[in-house]
Amino acid sequence: MAASTTAGLVGITSSIATRAHGTDLCRVRNPAGFHIVTHVPIRRGIGVPLHQQIYDGLHRAILDGLIRPGQRVPSTRELAAELGVSRLPVLGAYEQLLHEGYLTGRTGSGTFVSEALPDDMLGVAVVEPRATKSRALAHRYEGGLRPFRTSLPALDHFPQAVWARLVARHAHALTPAMMAYGDPAGLPQLRSAIADYLRTARAVRCEADRVLVVSGSQAALRLCASVLLGRGDSVAVEEPGYPGAHSALVASGAELVPIPVDGEGLDVHALDAIGKRVRAVYITPSHQYPLGASMSAARRLALLEWAGRRNAWVIEDDYDSEYRYVSRPLPALQGMSTNDRVVYIGTFSKVLFPSIRVGYVVAPKALCEKFALEREATDVFSPTLYQLVLTDFLNDGHFARHLRRMRLLYLSRRDAVLEGLDRYCQGVLTVHNADAGLHVATLLTGALRDGDVLSHMLARGLTAHRLSMCYVGGKPRQGLLLGFGGFDEKQLLSATRTLGKLLNELPVGS
Amino acid sequence: MAASTTAGLVGITSSIATRAHGTDLCRVRNPAGFHIVTHVPIRRGIGVPLHQQIYDGLHRAILDGLIRPGQRVPSTRELAAELGVSRLPVLGAYEQLLHEGYLTGRTGSGTFVSEALPDDMLGVAVVEPRATKSRALAHRYEGGLRPFRTSLPALDHFPQAVWARLVARHAHALTPAMMAYGDPAGLPQLRSAIADYLRTARAVRCEADRVLVVSGSQAALRLCASVLLGRGDSVAVEEPGYPGAHSALVASGAELVPIPVDGEGLDVHALDAIGKRVRAVYITPSHQYPLGASMSAARRLALLEWAGRRNAWVIEDDYDSEYRYVSRPLPALQGMSTNDRVVYIGTFSKVLFPSIRVGYVVAPKALCEKFALEREATDVFSPTLYQLVLTDFLNDGHFARHLRRMRLLYLSRRDAVLEGLDRYCQGVLTVHNADAGLHVATLLTGALRDGDVLSHMLARGLTAHRLSMCYVGGKPRQGLLLGFGGFDEKQLLSATRTLGKLLNELPVGS
Repeated sequence: MAASTTAGLVGITSSIATRAHGTDLCRVRNPAGFHIVTHVPIRRGIGVPLHQQIYDGLHRAILDGLIRPGQRVPSTRELAAELGVSRLPVLGAYEQLLHEGYLTGRTGSGTFVSEALPDDMLGVAVVEPRATKSRALAHRYEGGLRPFRTSLPALDHFPQAVWARLVARHAHALTPAMMAYGDPAGLPQLRSAIADYLRTARAVRCEADRVLVVSGSQAALRLCASVLLGRGDSVAVEEPGYPGAHSALVASGAELVPIPVDGEGLDVHALDAIGKRVRAVYITPSHQYPLGASMSAARRLALLEWAGRRNAWVIEDDYDSEYRYVSRPLPALQGMSTNDRVVYIGTFSKVLFPSIRVGYVVAPKALCEKFALEREATDVFSPTLYQLVLTDFLNDGHFARHLRRMRLLYLSRRDAVLEGLDRYCQGVLTVHNADAGLHVATLLTGALRDGDVLSHMLARGLTAHRLSMCYVGGKPRQGLLLGFGGFDEKQLLSATRTLGKLLNELPVGS
Repeated sequence: MAASTTAGLVGITSSIATRAHGTDLCRVRNPAGFHIVTHVPIRRGIGVPLHQQIYDGLHRAILDGLIRPGQRVPSTRELAAELGVSRLPVLGAYEQLLHEGYLTGRTGSGTFVSEALPDDMLGVAVVEPRATKSRALAHRYEGGLRPFRTSLPALDHFPQAVWARLVARHAHALTPAMMAYGDPAGLPQLRSAIADYLRTARAVRCEADRVLVVSGSQAALRLCASVLLGRGDSVAVEEPGYPGAHSALVASGAELVPIPVDGEGLDVHALDAIGKRVRAVYITPSHQYPLGASMSAARRLALLEWAGRRNAWVIEDDYDSEYRYVSRPLPALQGMSTNDRVVYIGTFSKVLFPSIRVGYVVAPKALCEKFALEREATDVFSPTLYQLVLTDFLNDGHFARHLRRMRLLYLSRRDAVLEGLDRYCQGVLTVHNADAGLHVATLLTGALRDGDVLSHMLARGLTAHRLSMCYVGGKPRQGLLLGFGGFDEKQLLSATRTLGKLLNELPVGS
């Protein structure tokens, strides 16, 4: 892995650049005041004078790059106190280091490691700037905020002022009890507010004690893998399906069994026809990821019947069901279940904002304790401050209001993409589904490969998810998942024009 | 799992209690304004009048407990708009529900589900209040803030005002980019600040690009297990050792090999003498958990030599090395390593406060990318707001100042426990080690069992960790780990008096 900011490193290898660029680089770092006594292991009775020991320790720490050019060192008085020695030997050591040029004194602002030290004196690895960052790494993070980044809500329409006011209020009032360890299952009042929301808006059958607060839907999926799946188990997934789920579900050694989806969602007949035992099936019934179908009532009932008959678990990922543009939202599959075989998971990343890192699991009664224990073993609990803030945001009606506003906004943004695709991408791209959620599923026509298209898109300031990456088995279809949540109508129209131009210029089969 | 707050549930089973207790219970819940259209699946052309369909949907949702007594329903105008129907059928349905007593209207404040519905009409499971909560669950969380809770810093001495000011400032200034997905490895400026701190104060050899921000040391340990260990691998641990590490390290199917510790830390000869291949060793060299030894320089060098020779990884958990009361802090083992076989992990839970949920891993160069990918697969990234706040807290010197103040405070608290133990627990409890950290390791004398002692302590408002729970193999020693970080001198003296009384009253071998 290379440095994603190499501030400190560049600073070491190029002091001129550092001086020019200012305060965020290493040599002119803000002095943080950390104690440095670990570098000066004073030993008495070994015949080496104290001033020599102090000199040796600091000299070595500077040469080793542990204390860096531009970094402030404590005053002689402070260091003497920390070392528990008189000030004289510290003064002696500092004098020598100043004389030799390792330290410099700045009037009124203290003593610093000299910035004039030649780089080849310092035992610090030279690192090439940026560029070498792995492509595999951080697929969500790269692509940044450019169109058609998927999974991105309209961040500039988030009621930031309301949110910040709640954050500030709770931060100022944070009690020791709220700073200490919290319940691994989540703050009781937040679990209660989430249960209210899910019952009311999603027809999920749950009490607060079945709700588990986790750090997003990826964490929820990993938790499902830990609790439900072991080495050699089979877990069925939609084909095509959500790649993030694929990687999470195999984390405890399970194997993926891809099951085709069609316009009614997962093919339950095909699932039932699998020879071996399937311990769990992962589905997105409200809005199939990536192709967009919503699972029919008949299929839902068949799936629940299958789970009961086969003693299997259904993992329902309701990742963006709040936004539906044609027909009315379907209730969650979990609410239709009478045999308590469904683990329901959701996230606030898409309905609020991704960096909140809060999601939830509604566990079947029989698994509640297992889920809670495993959640604790994973990373103990979620930060308390955001849980307090989110509770108020839900209970005070801000969340419901935000959802209502976003439904209209996303409808208009979706219509803009569809209009743009119709205008600029006819013949090269077919809209497969745009009924719900924050992305349009499209198919490439002809022999175009989505990987080739994406690299051309990246070069022109666009991005997308590749449909072909959503397949576990062979024969992937080629297409683009175009996120529209985070971009206004003008941006979207302009981006579809760029996309159309690019697609029409590509040789078929490029 | 039983409800840890059963607010909503108690509310359902006892409306009188609910009315008496006020606003946090279910029946008088604050109306959050969620849309309820999923409960009313309008179908046209099926011969059922619209008002009947709306009545049926709401009636069912109320009976099923999905919309609860006391909960507000939308106005007829709102619901008509959401359903895309005229207001007339909604009015008809509401009238019938009001007439039958399912809904009640409150002048000026809207329409609510009736609170007078008899419980046996509602399809809501009756749950016994509290009490059944699993004992295994949430061991960190239970014990709350009572003495001698371990791992608890002095929360009332945290510079809360400074912290809250930084939180408020960053919350108000949060940009869309900071609300979107962040780098899985952490905010670059925070990684850089952590690297500065670790180099300066702990003599860890690292650049920012080797630092990975994670959600605490438990998450760091799980990450180590995922990256370093697979099914059937052996991982050596200190005996006795940290139980949280034991559970994390076996998460990917590895087996624990306990290695004895003595006054110099882990017995490296015993480690070297193991017949089978050991892939990694987990150690706490600065302050051995639980017994408190700091690993000698000779052992450290021997361990690093062993790791190089055997191609094994060393996981160094530097969980509370900042606080050392006798002799000077030793530099981190990682900084002594020349063969880059050490994974260094730490946390801000104990030096700041537990609910911050931020820890870090300094990975060997060869493993940086693997660690970052695995960190992303686990829960993508840590909440951005706290990362921004923590960066300022480190760079502006607040952290170093806080550490300096806490060192003096903890020294005084530790002296208070030692004095209390000396005064009240002579002959029943022996202090094993109190050189560093936030707990005193003690041994029970005679035939007292720590499990028995703990249950008596809990009954008198005290808690502790049991030494015997820190053993993987047979023959555990009996003792108590007494946390003193979170309690002032008066509380500690009083708690030791209670403990002494209790121990002296216990029949030996109780």
